Amino acid sequence: MKNPLLILVAGGSASGKSTVVQEILDRAGFDDVIIIKHDDYYLDQSNLPLEVRYLTNYDHPSSLDNQLLYNHLKMLLEGKSIDKPVYDFVNHTRSNEIEHINSKPIIIVEGILILENEKIRDLSNMNLFVELDDDTRFIRRMLRDMKERGRTLENIISQYEKTVKPMYHKHIKPTKRYADVIIPNDRKHEIAVDLIVTKIKQILGEKI
Amino acid sequence: MKNPLLILVAGGSASGKSTVVQEILDRAGFDDVIIIKHDDYYLDQSNLPLEVRYLTNYDHPSSLDNQLLYNHLKMLLEGKSIDKPVYDFVNHTRSNEIEHINSKPIIIVEGILILENEKIRDLSNMNLFVELDDDTRFIRRMLRDMKERGRTLENIISQYEKTVKPMYHKHIKPTKRYADVIIPNDRKHEIAVDLIVTKIKQILGEKI
Repeated sequence: MKNPLLILVAGGSASGKSTVVQEILDRAGFDDVIIIKHDDYYLDQSNLPLEVRYLTNYDHPSSLDNQLLYNHLKMLLEGKSIDKPVYDFVNHTRSNEIEHINSKPIIIVEGILILENEKIRDLSNMNLFVELDDDTRFIRRMLRDMKERGRTLENIISQYEKTVKPMYHKHIKPTKRYADVIIPNDRKHEIAVDLIVTKIKQILGEKI
Repeated sequence: MKNPLLILVAGGSASGKSTVVQEILDRAGFDDVIIIKHDDYYLDQSNLPLEVRYLTNYDHPSSLDNQLLYNHLKMLLEGKSIDKPVYDFVNHTRSNEIEHINSKPIIIVEGILILENEKIRDLSNMNLFVELDDDTRFIRRMLRDMKERGRTLENIISQYEKTVKPMYHKHIKPTKRYADVIIPNDRKHEIAVDLIVTKIKQILGEKI
């Protein structure tokens, strides 16, 4: 097997990263593509009391175990398998679960801060940044938080203004500079996804 | 022959559009790719006195003969050949030259305002926007104007502030919203170019 290809997909909260990644996966095929969420690499906080864990700023790079992700990506790129952690957002710490993942030719890692870490960027073959207007991102996030998490409007706005927005401008948006391709998501992204899938299929040596 | 593919490449002055297009051409091959510059479709002004022509605002959409370009693109997309005008920037009008161009499978049109016209966008299969920081674009433009056109710094700055910058924000930057893919040009654009060339080669039916 050739060295696997590593693709990093960043973008603000509710920018549509997961949708883009899912479409790539659907079209490129499960057999050859692994999707990893940076979210699963939030730091283990089991040693902290729950009330302290509640204060975790998930939009800040320091909340992530990038050393572990780096080690895991190195292993996957060498064709080895990993035991991926699974994060428990209810208890705000790493869960006891692990997920055994075998290496595949295409490795995609998705997360708001995935382009922030230099060592991880250095492993990457292609950096994507999914971009959506800030107001549209807020609306999508608000509706999702209301529907899926039953949160109040006041609570959503307060968290957005205190953490999500300033962290986006401080830590996420600046990483757009590391993108090889920016995928605007306000209209459609089929053509961008198609370019990436075409490249993936070329690498897989398929007749396309 | 299948219907040709139309790719539009926009971006501000000195953003690196031509370089990106040239690299696509170099890698995809002259046999199958036509490059058209929107610049050649500036309006014929031979009926105007030269002192009026000097005042042409080349950064404004109204200076372009988009109807002619539209007709020509329709013809090329139908496999027909065209007689492309050639613009004379010294005399600020269409020259007497024409360039006979046969249709090819891939048609790329490049220009600061190429994504501005809805009818032309409707013909397009892929819209690219080459993005470079405003300050870097100014520096590149300044050095080019000093070297190639022998213009003074004062003259360059004055034109930039009076026309280039406001027109960019009014007419060019808003068309970024029509892009399927944004190519950041401040680091490197090899990976973006490679994605597009890979797609072109797929369309050409080459084994890639």
